[in-house]
Amino acid sequence: MDYEAPQFFHVMRYATEAEGDVIDMVSGDPDWDPPSALRDGLREFADFEPKQFQYPPSEGLDRLRELIADDQGIDQSQLVITHGAGEANYLAMARAFERDAGDEAVLLDPVYPYYPAKINMIGGTVRTVQTAPDGDLDVDVIAEAVSTDTAVIVLNTPNNPTGAVYRIDDIRAVVEIAEDHDALVVVDEVYDKFDLSGRFTSAQTIDSDHCIVTSGFSKSMAITGLRIGYAIAPAAHIGAMKARHMITTVAGSRPGQYAVLRALEETPPSYYSTTRSLIAERIEAFTTALDGVGAAYTTPHGAFYVLARFDGFPGTLENIERLIDEAGVAGMPGDAFGAGRADWLRFALVTDRTTEAADRLGAYFQAR
Amino acid sequence: MDYEAPQFFHVMRYATEAEGDVIDMVSGDPDWDPPSALRDGLREFADFEPKQFQYPPSEGLDRLRELIADDQGIDQSQLVITHGAGEANYLAMARAFERDAGDEAVLLDPVYPYYPAKINMIGGTVRTVQTAPDGDLDVDVIAEAVSTDTAVIVLNTPNNPTGAVYRIDDIRAVVEIAEDHDALVVVDEVYDKFDLSGRFTSAQTIDSDHCIVTSGFSKSMAITGLRIGYAIAPAAHIGAMKARHMITTVAGSRPGQYAVLRALEETPPSYYSTTRSLIAERIEAFTTALDGVGAAYTTPHGAFYVLARFDGFPGTLENIERLIDEAGVAGMPGDAFGAGRADWLRFALVTDRTTEAADRLGAYFQAR
Repeated sequence: MDYEAPQFFHVMRYATEAEGDVIDMVSGDPDWDPPSALRDGLREFADFEPKQFQYPPSEGLDRLRELIADDQGIDQSQLVITHGAGEANYLAMARAFERDAGDEAVLLDPVYPYYPAKINMIGGTVRTVQTAPDGDLDVDVIAEAVSTDTAVIVLNTPNNPTGAVYRIDDIRAVVEIAEDHDALVVVDEVYDKFDLSGRFTSAQTIDSDHCIVTSGFSKSMAITGLRIGYAIAPAAHIGAMKARHMITTVAGSRPGQYAVLRALEETPPSYYSTTRSLIAERIEAFTTALDGVGAAYTTPHGAFYVLARFDGFPGTLENIERLIDEAGVAGMPGDAFGAGRADWLRFALVTDRTTEAADRLGAYFQAR
Repeated sequence: MDYEAPQFFHVMRYATEAEGDVIDMVSGDPDWDPPSALRDGLREFADFEPKQFQYPPSEGLDRLRELIADDQGIDQSQLVITHGAGEANYLAMARAFERDAGDEAVLLDPVYPYYPAKINMIGGTVRTVQTAPDGDLDVDVIAEAVSTDTAVIVLNTPNNPTGAVYRIDDIRAVVEIAEDHDALVVVDEVYDKFDLSGRFTSAQTIDSDHCIVTSGFSKSMAITGLRIGYAIAPAAHIGAMKARHMITTVAGSRPGQYAVLRALEETPPSYYSTTRSLIAERIEAFTTALDGVGAAYTTPHGAFYVLARFDGFPGTLENIERLIDEAGVAGMPGDAFGAGRADWLRFALVTDRTTEAADRLGAYFQAR
């Protein structure tokens, strides 16, 4: 085994087991309510006949696939429902490598740590490329890094942890680079409902055999524990991805698929706009408080994370544990996201105590 | 891609889309009711606070792991909750191959088709060994097949499709062979509650660093669609399996885990004995009807499948589709389970129309 499990669960456990009161800003677990229709769906499911408790179609419940395909404007045949966006990313990356078209993955720094973990597990090598200082795509730098060794380029927009939202023209440029080198581009759009910039456009609108989109409902419906995700892939790849899905996990969980299906049918747009407003308010409150203590930070254009930097306090696991114990605030170490942000700490805005958290951080660093 | 998806979903779709009335004996989908406490668990979950909708611990809910560990008499640290027994088998097999201790899997014929599909996907080669005519383990034949090239030996008891229940001494002998060649033995016990012989003993009672047990609740609780399984592995392997689990799928589905937890707490032993009796009755009815038409069959000692053979009608996919269209009975082709049973057809006793199905088969073959 030459792959390393990401640290999220370790830090979450550490925060939970800490003695004092800790404000949890570790994981991307939303603290707001799932859609009420999703709860209704679970209640309805509980009363279904035995047949409904059995294997769904491996590629997902027909009605759920129909709703997603309609929403995304794609053909249902391009879609596979997965056990969370995490499985969708695994299927897409594994597909990229099984083509014998290179053994290298180009990942952007900072990076969601599950990406390099997956690449290592699959047996690929990771080549890291820096993003622009604001987290934006630097197409020229990517063009330099991509070669015939490249099997896959992985993008995430809106981005965790930087909050960048990539311009669709930039993504298209990356796809064209990939086409020239027979690489695939995997675009993880799981934060698509958390575009605060208004410039997000899904990469599935790009007409290319070299682009796979992954997403899911973990964030948009506040249900990371239900594990309902999906992949949209061109005809050249979807068959192999469906086969790997069937062989690895058989099918996605049925109650979760049914609950999401019901939520998609009935949830009004206001559900999503309300959570977006909530995030925008928290960003404002948290960054204002950080301003007050003179900390550096990035202002996110999407997703719900803030990267912050405190002088002389690099983003190591040791420092994160110190903040949990001594300041009562739990974040993620920046060095978990790559060398480029090793001085930074990531805070997930998934608590209504964001101002209090920033105040605690301020008091802690002023006393040092 | 050099792996092939199993045919179950294809045959199920074919049967569903057929014009006439078809008795479905294709998949291992129980038709009886899940435990009532499992339904209660889903209902309770629907009303939980948002926090409960988020990621469970990657290795599974603490209370669920505690209940399983107590039930199995193992240490909780040996246990990982997976997305069905299917994921547990994938994790165990992948662990066997990542040790650089051989690139071959020894599988028994007849074989559950997901096993060779998983081995091919992982990149291993399959070496097939015949079981005894009644489906029992032939330890000598296995001993001959195992070499330093062997990474893993996969057993399934109670067995799908033969219904054999292996003697624990035979399994121990296979584990000793594995130890001598640094191979792992994966024992899939997902049908453990369907031991009709009284001789089933779990392989986790064997004290060895070379034995991994996989199981789940899909069959015992009639919930193949909830995808709650687990693996029990020695300290030498459980860490790597947990890491792969986290990296591939993050964690199992939380509502399903909670529902199973509630069912484990409250379901009386009579739930399991009642389903066992139901299966025994169906076996009796189906095989008696097969006797009446002069068909050959195996009498299962466990699980809930019957292999039947009709002269001049080999167990091909084409013949299965013919039976669906012309006899109104859907089974699985024997050749999906390996060359050893290519003349046979597998019927899953998951319908209360087993006698009618046997009568239909009898009428069909008498008219040919």
